[in-house]
Amino acid sequence: MQPFEKKVIIDADTGIDDALAILYALKATDVHVEGITTVFGNISVQQATENTLRIIQLAKTTYEIPVVQGAEKPLQRTLQGFSTKVHGENGIGDVELPPSAQKALGEEAHEFILRKADELPNELIIVALGRLTNLAQALQKDATLAQKIKHVYVMGGAVHVPGNVTPVSEANIWGDPEAADIVFSSGLPITMVGLDVTMKTLITQQHLNYLQEHCQEENKDIVEFINESLQFYFDFYHTSNYWMGAAPLHDPLTMLVALEPGVVKTQQMKIKVECQSEICQGMTVADLRRNALVGSPVQVCIDVEAEYAVNKLLSVFL
Amino acid sequence: MQPFEKKVIIDADTGIDDALAILYALKATDVHVEGITTVFGNISVQQATENTLRIIQLAKTTYEIPVVQGAEKPLQRTLQGFSTKVHGENGIGDVELPPSAQKALGEEAHEFILRKADELPNELIIVALGRLTNLAQALQKDATLAQKIKHVYVMGGAVHVPGNVTPVSEANIWGDPEAADIVFSSGLPITMVGLDVTMKTLITQQHLNYLQEHCQEENKDIVEFINESLQFYFDFYHTSNYWMGAAPLHDPLTMLVALEPGVVKTQQMKIKVECQSEICQGMTVADLRRNALVGSPVQVCIDVEAEYAVNKLLSVFL
Repeated sequence: MQPFEKKVIIDADTGIDDALAILYALKATDVHVEGITTVFGNISVQQATENTLRIIQLAKTTYEIPVVQGAEKPLQRTLQGFSTKVHGENGIGDVELPPSAQKALGEEAHEFILRKADELPNELIIVALGRLTNLAQALQKDATLAQKIKHVYVMGGAVHVPGNVTPVSEANIWGDPEAADIVFSSGLPITMVGLDVTMKTLITQQHLNYLQEHCQEENKDIVEFINESLQFYFDFYHTSNYWMGAAPLHDPLTMLVALEPGVVKTQQMKIKVECQSEICQGMTVADLRRNALVGSPVQVCIDVEAEYAVNKLLSVFL
Repeated sequence: MQPFEKKVIIDADTGIDDALAILYALKATDVHVEGITTVFGNISVQQATENTLRIIQLAKTTYEIPVVQGAEKPLQRTLQGFSTKVHGENGIGDVELPPSAQKALGEEAHEFILRKADELPNELIIVALGRLTNLAQALQKDATLAQKIKHVYVMGGAVHVPGNVTPVSEANIWGDPEAADIVFSSGLPITMVGLDVTMKTLITQQHLNYLQEHCQEENKDIVEFINESLQFYFDFYHTSNYWMGAAPLHDPLTMLVALEPGVVKTQQMKIKVECQSEICQGMTVADLRRNALVGSPVQVCIDVEAEYAVNKLLSVFL
């Protein structure tokens, strides 16, 4: 392990863009992935675990990455189904990766998070790419976790831009608003990487063509997987009501921000997660009044150097 | 009456900026005020009626303006108190105007609105400067009202800017969200003049100094009242957490937009009024997703030629 490596737990509902985020982290040189915890969301938690194990195998990592299965449903609500229209039936664009011999640890995700936080006090960074259920469960078990974690990067929420589930709500927060509320009000130092920046961080087929032409021989399998799985993602963003000729890199950007925070501009806002209303469920309500009274302080990403970010994310495969 | 005059009912909770909006309408040459209905809000409905009668007397109008008292509380909720910190105990900055001999009509505001809409089919414009309770009651009594009104200009709501009661809610919508929901979903053609534009339309003491120096002799009393009542308003915006050296002309701008719609830029949005949540109560939720699914179409003011608007509003007193 290098002395300046960041120590990261990735918490993922491993779909198409989660997979790219994980592959980026496993290939980047300035990070040590302490483990990957899984959660329901894009697909079932069992499928998320399976996808994660296969992606780690695909990455041919130089060290073993523990995989730990987590929550299979929201803290309080009933499960609302999965995002198979966006991510495919298997969550990774229906691309078949070979099974891995590695198994998930026989531990709960939230217990793993608590254990690692104790092993690495004030060093551990959590990159949360799905519903915040595992992290909320960890906080429910031990609220002092908030003082042991160095930083949490959350892919989720929307402030100045529309939501992607309701007019105002982003899927990860909407999918377990009570969990998000616990996390946001816990005192954890949080950077929110929401739709304000992720919807601007767009990958196109041209990026992938360049990658295929120029990648290292050892990364050919990875790049082929990225290209194939992203075809499903492109189709969704093209044929859905987004009418887009590109696809947003929600989770990869969040991973990048964790490793290179300067790629985004942030503003500290007080944020409260809405849990009562139907339309506003999961809204990250920002109190932007001068005398902000409501919510907990969060660093909210408001702008991103998008083309730089996309190229930086892909550069690890060249 | 001139042939191109707009026929307007003003619905007001006559506070400081409502008073200026009314005085502007009574002095403008391109409008015939068919009546002023009153509603609780900044102050009690009784005080709103009294203020309205006194302001009409101050304006020395060339024709009689009927005043009709309306709702004294929200449709379903209990009354939450008044905005005396913003508008003073009497609603007009604690300036004492002489009593008027005119009395309010012995009719309910919502009945008056229904009657006038029948008398002036497809001609009547409603400028709603307070809670939307009267208009909602009229719609509850006769839903076909929505097809008889030419246009409704609503001072209320906020889309891209913070609220002024909660992080996301403006006072008029917050104060009776169920009424606003009825009005917004009624099919009435609505232009929403919300905080997005009214908070940019700022009057300063310099504007008032110019007005005092240059106004017509016949308008001296009016200008004196405007100047005195606005001192209270300036104090609120200066000493409250707004830290502003100017005051926003919420209601006057709305009146101006009704007479001169080109002063603002608008965008059609689907809007749904939030009635369930505590923090989001009264939020005008805009569905800005490309496949906007939620809410009813509303013309939302998103930008204003602010300095022009302030000068135009004051020009009628010169």
